[in-house]
Amino acid sequence: MKISNVVVAGGGVLGSQIAFQIAYKGFHMTVWLRSEASIDRARPKFERLKGIYLSTLEAMKTNPAAYCRGLAPSPDLTADQIDELKAQVEQAFNGIEYTTSYEEAAKDADLVIESIAENPQDKIAFYTELAKHLPERTIVVTNSSTMLPSTFAEYTGRPGQYLALHFANEIWRNNTAEIMGHPGTDPAAYDTVVEFAEEIGMIPLKLKKEQPGYILNSMLVPFLSAAEALLATDVADVETIDKTWMLATGAPLGPFRILDIVGLTTAYNIGALDPRAKDPNTVQGKIAAMLKRYIDEGKTGINAGEGFYTYK
Amino acid sequence: MKISNVVVAGGGVLGSQIAFQIAYKGFHMTVWLRSEASIDRARPKFERLKGIYLSTLEAMKTNPAAYCRGLAPSPDLTADQIDELKAQVEQAFNGIEYTTSYEEAAKDADLVIESIAENPQDKIAFYTELAKHLPERTIVVTNSSTMLPSTFAEYTGRPGQYLALHFANEIWRNNTAEIMGHPGTDPAAYDTVVEFAEEIGMIPLKLKKEQPGYILNSMLVPFLSAAEALLATDVADVETIDKTWMLATGAPLGPFRILDIVGLTTAYNIGALDPRAKDPNTVQGKIAAMLKRYIDEGKTGINAGEGFYTYK
Repeated sequence: MKISNVVVAGGGVLGSQIAFQIAYKGFHMTVWLRSEASIDRARPKFERLKGIYLSTLEAMKTNPAAYCRGLAPSPDLTADQIDELKAQVEQAFNGIEYTTSYEEAAKDADLVIESIAENPQDKIAFYTELAKHLPERTIVVTNSSTMLPSTFAEYTGRPGQYLALHFANEIWRNNTAEIMGHPGTDPAAYDTVVEFAEEIGMIPLKLKKEQPGYILNSMLVPFLSAAEALLATDVADVETIDKTWMLATGAPLGPFRILDIVGLTTAYNIGALDPRAKDPNTVQGKIAAMLKRYIDEGKTGINAGEGFYTYK
Repeated sequence: MKISNVVVAGGGVLGSQIAFQIAYKGFHMTVWLRSEASIDRARPKFERLKGIYLSTLEAMKTNPAAYCRGLAPSPDLTADQIDELKAQVEQAFNGIEYTTSYEEAAKDADLVIESIAENPQDKIAFYTELAKHLPERTIVVTNSSTMLPSTFAEYTGRPGQYLALHFANEIWRNNTAEIMGHPGTDPAAYDTVVEFAEEIGMIPLKLKKEQPGYILNSMLVPFLSAAEALLATDVADVETIDKTWMLATGAPLGPFRILDIVGLTTAYNIGALDPRAKDPNTVQGKIAAMLKRYIDEGKTGINAGEGFYTYK
């Protein structure tokens, strides 16, 4: 199936990035939001993204390091080619439609990307209402980071055409898309989504089955927890732990630099999913207490200007 | 305390590298080995190391990428300075003494580095006999990867002057030294070992307390196990998992490239320490079965020419 009309539901940090990137790649984009107030809150995010795309493209004319993989398949571009891409940015920004109507959003949709709050009840309500209006052909995907598509498949009215398409933050730079079906996903729908991911400038990362945390978080969470445990049990300090990892593996960032980017609140919330975190005598409890100390001091990571490291 | 005379016990892969590096940095080096046959087996390792050091230094004259941090504190060296370092290599090679006598090895030792087999009984027997001959001042360290210094402290006759100094493979390039005391280690002995590590061109990585796996393996083992689990449960393939990690974290190597370097047999042995690995229905059991399939086919990693990837 050929995808032309795409709907993104949700205008949060990720939803707006996903919608903007897809519009930039020439697809017709409708953003569905719950209310007029949500539309008002989303608009400045799109303004900001337009600015980022335009300034990054302009910088790519003179600085090879400015290149972002989501913006063009190769960094070898003439100034004229970059100006064409900048025109695409303007077109994308002007072409995005906003609606609060399920009917309006659904009627011509080839693909709906759900990127609403990580709350199962909200997602179920959304899918149930959406299903009443969708054409039969429409594929529905979720960008959920923490929930499995099998949880929601039945509510979409099209379990075979439902799967997960999971993006990373700063999609224009971090252009990966983890693609994960549930046991009932139709392979044809899966393949269509893989192809679509490529068309919007993403590198598709294919999961063969459902996995909580997809591929990346399945590795990142235990790695970061191990580093947190070393700090929380006072085995070594932040700098030593990061230095050890970087020297031994050649990685550009150690675990605490990564945690500052992820955000300590997110790390705390992930840790709190483990029941042992409630017991202050366990390693998990010590990690929770340590993260809480940082969070209580406002040191929530790079976005706050301070986390395990200070940024200024 | 000033360290001048160093003894390395053990002439295996790591023992020979440690001894050669220390001799290269100008210390008087005695290698203690269990038998004349062990000396005969060790000599070619030292021949090979001499060759590596000389050819790497020669390459550094023209190729900045050849620089290894263990060989010189900075890559900015004139050809004359490099020739001086090459002379140090020759001196080191010619100056190393070999002995099978505890008395001979112990008598003037300021520092003994134990790098014998990872077998507690062997280590206890070695320490107990060594202790009879050592001067009071001598500091004793273990290079053990898997055992804690508190296990052996009492057998050394000097628990306060006993700790772990743990090196990485290819010490001239991977110049890290994890330094870990047990609860009874004297801080002065710890500091002396930190200083010594710097003097022999290592970057000291200081642990504040005992930790099985030190800093690096405490993070590497859960990270690699998580990647192995994704493969063993057929969530994704080797290339996809590695690509996901590299794209998301900027790391030069994914987990399966690292496993090929570590060696699949080592990974299998580490996994077998978990009792769940005996049950084929657990994730740990599936990982063990998967690694065993590779090992049975001779695909034990980069040294065998094939592991998760093929090298040739």
